[in-house]
Amino acid sequence: MKCKFCSREAYIKLHYPKMYLCVDHFIEYFERKVQRTIERYKLLNKDEKVLVAISGGKDSAVTAYVLNKLGYNIECLHINLGIGEYSLKSEEFAKRQCKLIGAPLHIVRIKEILGHGIGEVRTRRPPCSYCGLTKRYIMNKFAYDNGFDAIATGHNLDDEASFLLNNLLHWNTEYLAKGGPLLPGEGKFVKKVKPLYELTEREVVAYALAVGLEYLVEECPHARGATTLDMKAILNELEEKRPGTKFTFVRGYLRKRKLFEVEVEKKELKECKVCGMPSSGEICAFCKFWGLKEPLDFKVSR
Amino acid sequence: MKCKFCSREAYIKLHYPKMYLCVDHFIEYFERKVQRTIERYKLLNKDEKVLVAISGGKDSAVTAYVLNKLGYNIECLHINLGIGEYSLKSEEFAKRQCKLIGAPLHIVRIKEILGHGIGEVRTRRPPCSYCGLTKRYIMNKFAYDNGFDAIATGHNLDDEASFLLNNLLHWNTEYLAKGGPLLPGEGKFVKKVKPLYELTEREVVAYALAVGLEYLVEECPHARGATTLDMKAILNELEEKRPGTKFTFVRGYLRKRKLFEVEVEKKELKECKVCGMPSSGEICAFCKFWGLKEPLDFKVSR
Ligand SMILES: [Zn+2]
Ligand SMILES: [Zn+2]
Ligand SMILES: [Zn+2]
Ligand SMILES: [Zn+2]
Repeated sequence: MKCKFCSREAYIKLHYPKMYLCVDHFIEYFERKVQRTIERYKLLNKDEKVLVAISGGKDSAVTAYVLNKLGYNIECLHINLGIGEYSLKSEEFAKRQCKLIGAPLHIVRIKEILGHGIGEVRTRRPPCSYCGLTKRYIMNKFAYDNGFDAIATGHNLDDEASFLLNNLLHWNTEYLAKGGPLLPGEGKFVKKVKPLYELTEREVVAYALAVGLEYLVEECPHARGATTLDMKAILNELEEKRPGTKFTFVRGYLRKRKLFEVEVEKKELKECKVCGMPSSGEICAFCKFWGLKEPLDFKVSR
Repeated sequence: MKCKFCSREAYIKLHYPKMYLCVDHFIEYFERKVQRTIERYKLLNKDEKVLVAISGGKDSAVTAYVLNKLGYNIECLHINLGIGEYSLKSEEFAKRQCKLIGAPLHIVRIKEILGHGIGEVRTRRPPCSYCGLTKRYIMNKFAYDNGFDAIATGHNLDDEASFLLNNLLHWNTEYLAKGGPLLPGEGKFVKKVKPLYELTEREVVAYALAVGLEYLVEECPHARGATTLDMKAILNELEEKRPGTKFTFVRGYLRKRKLFEVEVEKKELKECKVCGMPSSGEICAFCKFWGLKEPLDFKVSR
């Protein structure tokens, strides 16, 4: 099969829209789509300082690569979760990716700054629950302490569609109010954006391969990934029967998201007595969980 | 495997809740569930006159059978759609079912009263679209002309779950506002109820078999059933992995349905100049489509 735009051999067959593309035209298509996503949802300006959260996986690597290529001012942050082999490999990939991309990489190792890795803390809470809390806090505080205007994550179309499907099956209307490619900044919460929002997982994999990005395929050993994988499999089945299902589902959601907003309780946030970041109680969930008496300072000397 | 409640051999394994039941205890379980559904959602009183729409299929047959057994005052209506062999067989099954049940059966044949069967009308509209319009109109007018307090249909849990899933994937919020087991009566619109609302398709099939109800398995030849079948297949996959998915999905919907109600435009309805039934225009959609100059009168002489 030939590329739609030139006479070269097709690298990939896209289903929505339906077309064959050679590797160069696919790369172009992908990057244009990211740029249009950024413009359509007003995610970033070229003069903003962007922190890209790099996990070692494909989505965040591709996010950093494309943002850099499109001319955005990026630096990368890798949070080493202290989960044995998995974290060793993740950090290795993060380093290799940023070297290829040519962007500065900052590394924060949980074990070093908090004394324990994820999964090593004596608590009844499952690892995944305090892992998310920890990653989000560190990402935000790192961005805040260093004057970043935005945090970019690697969430793609499949991630959003499965998030929506799962939360609709359970009618978690508070979560449903908070989807979308843009979480505006608020006080000490730095703006968060998802540049890969309109690209499917399959397209992200194809792009990483096309540009030579290597990444860690394996899942975190603690991953309660089962639900997400099931949702993604279901959506892939629906997509195969009716190409465009994921996209219309997500776009339709964005138009109707406001219906769920009435369900969100507006909470008055204080400042954490330890770290000064937003908190519902005297001490924020992060400082409380990790038993901090002093705030973590992520300011990088330049 | 033995029945949970007695020593007899199991007839069926239920998954939510998880238990094996012999045929008699299954029949009891099923009928209790219908009665609880009627009570929980305030669908019917014992002194109401109920019209059960009988298609020849399993769901409506089981609905009529159980309502009759539970002591409700029912009569059945079969609408022969004039679709060749399919309608011949449907009418046959409807007659046999009502004979077994011991309930009066009224038959309305579209070809006789309107001159054409579904699919024989010269129109650009697909058969399914005017079929639905026609069935709903005739059901309602028959019920209204004969003083019925409610119309009961055979919609089951799988039907509702797939209706919700499909309309959520497309964000058809107007439809999403109108789900549920009860459509209250309004003016000349007779109340509509779904007694099988909490029972799965699989349970309905098992009940029909258990009580010896025979029914037409084949789909209407015009059936655009593909979407519904796909949704049901998807939901069955989810249910298999996590038993109870359909039920929590539908119950959660009922709690949150009000969120979609803001999207419904309240339309002022007039009375159709031909038939006097509710209409958005001078002439109602039914009389308009079928080109009626005189109203159809369904009053049955007694
Ligand atoms: Zn090409
Ligand atoms: Zn704090
Ligand atoms: Zn038994
Ligand atoms: Zn009319």
